[in-house]
Amino acid sequence: MAQRGKNDLGFLFNPESIAVVGASPVPGKLSHIILESLDAAGFRGSVYPVNPKYDSVGGLKCYPSIEAIDGIVDLAVIAVPAEAVPAVIRGAKGRLRGAVVVSGGFGEKDEKGRRLEEELINSAQTAGIRIIGPNCMGIFDAVTGVDTFFIPRDRVKRPKRGTISILSQSGSFALTAIDLLSEEGIGAARVVSYGNRVDVDESDCLEFLAYDDSTHAVALYIESVKDGRRFVEAASLCSSKKPVIAVKVGKSGAGVSAARSHTGALAGRYELYRAAFKKAGIKELLGFEDFMDGCRALGVYRPVQGNRVIIITDGGGVGVNIADACSSLGLHVAPLPEALRDEILKKFPPYFIVGNPLDLTGSVTDEWVATALKRTLGDDGFDAAIVAALWGPPGLTDRLPGLIADCAKLVRKPLIVCSPGGEFSKSKRRLFIEKGLPVFDTPESAARAAAILANNGKKGR
Amino acid sequence: MAQRGKNDLGFLFNPESIAVVGASPVPGKLSHIILESLDAAGFRGSVYPVNPKYDSVGGLKCYPSIEAIDGIVDLAVIAVPAEAVPAVIRGAKGRLRGAVVVSGGFGEKDEKGRRLEEELINSAQTAGIRIIGPNCMGIFDAVTGVDTFFIPRDRVKRPKRGTISILSQSGSFALTAIDLLSEEGIGAARVVSYGNRVDVDESDCLEFLAYDDSTHAVALYIESVKDGRRFVEAASLCSSKKPVIAVKVGKSGAGVSAARSHTGALAGRYELYRAAFKKAGIKELLGFEDFMDGCRALGVYRPVQGNRVIIITDGGGVGVNIADACSSLGLHVAPLPEALRDEILKKFPPYFIVGNPLDLTGSVTDEWVATALKRTLGDDGFDAAIVAALWGPPGLTDRLPGLIADCAKLVRKPLIVCSPGGEFSKSKRRLFIEKGLPVFDTPESAARAAAILANNGKKGR
Repeated sequence: MAQRGKNDLGFLFNPESIAVVGASPVPGKLSHIILESLDAAGFRGSVYPVNPKYDSVGGLKCYPSIEAIDGIVDLAVIAVPAEAVPAVIRGAKGRLRGAVVVSGGFGEKDEKGRRLEEELINSAQTAGIRIIGPNCMGIFDAVTGVDTFFIPRDRVKRPKRGTISILSQSGSFALTAIDLLSEEGIGAARVVSYGNRVDVDESDCLEFLAYDDSTHAVALYIESVKDGRRFVEAASLCSSKKPVIAVKVGKSGAGVSAARSHTGALAGRYELYRAAFKKAGIKELLGFEDFMDGCRALGVYRPVQGNRVIIITDGGGVGVNIADACSSLGLHVAPLPEALRDEILKKFPPYFIVGNPLDLTGSVTDEWVATALKRTLGDDGFDAAIVAALWGPPGLTDRLPGLIADCAKLVRKPLIVCSPGGEFSKSKRRLFIEKGLPVFDTPESAARAAAILANNGKKGR
Repeated sequence: MAQRGKNDLGFLFNPESIAVVGASPVPGKLSHIILESLDAAGFRGSVYPVNPKYDSVGGLKCYPSIEAIDGIVDLAVIAVPAEAVPAVIRGAKGRLRGAVVVSGGFGEKDEKGRRLEEELINSAQTAGIRIIGPNCMGIFDAVTGVDTFFIPRDRVKRPKRGTISILSQSGSFALTAIDLLSEEGIGAARVVSYGNRVDVDESDCLEFLAYDDSTHAVALYIESVKDGRRFVEAASLCSSKKPVIAVKVGKSGAGVSAARSHTGALAGRYELYRAAFKKAGIKELLGFEDFMDGCRALGVYRPVQGNRVIIITDGGGVGVNIADACSSLGLHVAPLPEALRDEILKKFPPYFIVGNPLDLTGSVTDEWVATALKRTLGDDGFDAAIVAALWGPPGLTDRLPGLIADCAKLVRKPLIVCSPGGEFSKSKRRLFIEKGLPVFDTPESAARAAAILANNGKKGR
């Protein structure tokens, strides 16, 4: 995890000590949830509750101020009213390296909040303390166990350690993403919600993640960027080392006004964002669905260089749907190479429909899915596979996910499982997840995942 | 259910008697599943197993042939090998009105199958018997309890009685759709999978559904239509009475070849389909996701004439996403009327962000969602609402779905719930479903539903 960028933010993601300012012994209080979260996330460094009102909180010694703690604190999570935040930062000069300010009531609120935000910026600069936020969830880091997200885990689950990192201006977007990834058994590395972004911004984080060995891919949710030129530099650096995908919201007039800017100004700017993404080697996503499919895909597979996809299905209509969706996203639903086609025609039962999609029909069995996958995805003619596992036919059993997972390991190419359906199908998802296979709910979703992986591979990896 | 079209197919959907030809006492056999399905679906007419090998099947008297049954049988489900089907039809002349031929091995298979299909067509014409199929699932009718779908209910659930009818060339598509609707608590009326379509086709069914009082909306999955001119006539008739939505698959080269036609011919034809849809007053859907969102929306709400949508959220980022998705689909994320805005600014807490989206932030409570909904959707300025229920904030409780449902009843406009998220969020879906509210998993999905309902209302209803 050696950091070589000019912004070495390592201490924010891998701190030796965390102070929780405004710590409360009252369950349900934001600061109390953060203490619980750090514990649940397995953070191994020192944790210091800070609150002049208490001697101890949650069994830990409580300090009246950051200054009262011995030594230098790497990270403080600040959860006191906005009015009190600048003074906390000023007081911690020389004793604190960075702070996540979760408190709201700053620039996003009103004129008074905007003045407070200015005061916070000045205090942080004077004190030499880096700030994430304010008005943010902060950091969830599955690598180190830092978790400043103040929503309890019974409401929003945290993903296991994985390799995709997420940068999001929006807290609700980041929360929804990690909650879904967790449910789907997909891990994450570093997740940052940076809110009002008075100091640490998307470019700082991109530089950090570029050199972060724990991060193999980066997904960005952007409402705006602070500095366009720096963003392109940082994103180019990052995308030269690992895939970077991004969704820019506030595209439309409505979205823009929702992000509270003026329509005319920003409507033009969206084109600038697209150009910047292109220049920086970022794959642009269209919205939430695309973002999640990208996280699922890159959270499990490395991208590939080609775009030739084989579709294996046990239902003709769903196969055609996947083929349509793939084509519309620029994937090549390539015909079977002639030799392969001849071999399959010879060896497979005559009632299978041999083409792409390869339709194993209602007569499908677990073994035929595995055989079809090995023959096709194992062939040089294909870069990725989508398997529609429709659970109607009786020949599909609980052995299917294991057999598919074995193929994925053998072939080492992306293998996307599409399994739309109700109660029975959903009850089988767990089996795929246990085998490390993400499951996509719709033909379009599976196609989006394949499209994000395709033609996104780097040479020499 | 008075039928006035030239194709009175009422006897297929509301038969007094059903013969199951090829009936087997062996559990798991296709014909056995159909007998079980008819029982489980609550079909109240007579059921006659037909198989010369048995005296009784499943506790019912078994007949050697259709001719051996007293009187005229309305509907036969034929599940014998393809070679035997034409003779069954010829033998039933004068004793049978219609047949669902579920057997495969006809035109979809090979040259021999094509000849068999010709023979079947000739036999049916000579005998005066209407045919659905072959190579199809047939009919699932939640109104009358006819269920010829031969996938057992533990694998694919059947929806309760509702008001949307589905016509699908594809069996797997129809199965996936009803399975999902069932899980989501949304009912269906008539569902037809017509496979090779040698006789009864989409146009016949559209004419039937046009006059069917049990059907309030129709969703079509089309790979091709048999007769373009007749299709436009039948669809126009139907869409003059109720909303008709349709997805045409096999749009792309890959999809087309998957549907096994020639690329050049069909690529051009897709434009013809679009023109036909437009002429016939059909709202075109893009694919599976759109199709399902349309079924969910029209399965619960009547369309409206306007397109002004209010978005209520407790997470800013997700709100912006919904706004972007709405705008991209032609919905108008309209500003709050001035008087309404003033009133809300006066009465709502100052930390809510008053606009469209209306962001109730993490300080949201059940009651504030209900109040916000009543004020905004109750106002003449809006035609529909999307409520993002993100379950992170502690102020949202199990009372929320009931309060939202009360609003929906009071206001009588479409009210779309968007609740993306993992385990906790999914555990709350049941509460919405119990209150009759469909739940949409993604911002885009909610926006698609609203877009299908918007500007699709008929005057004078």
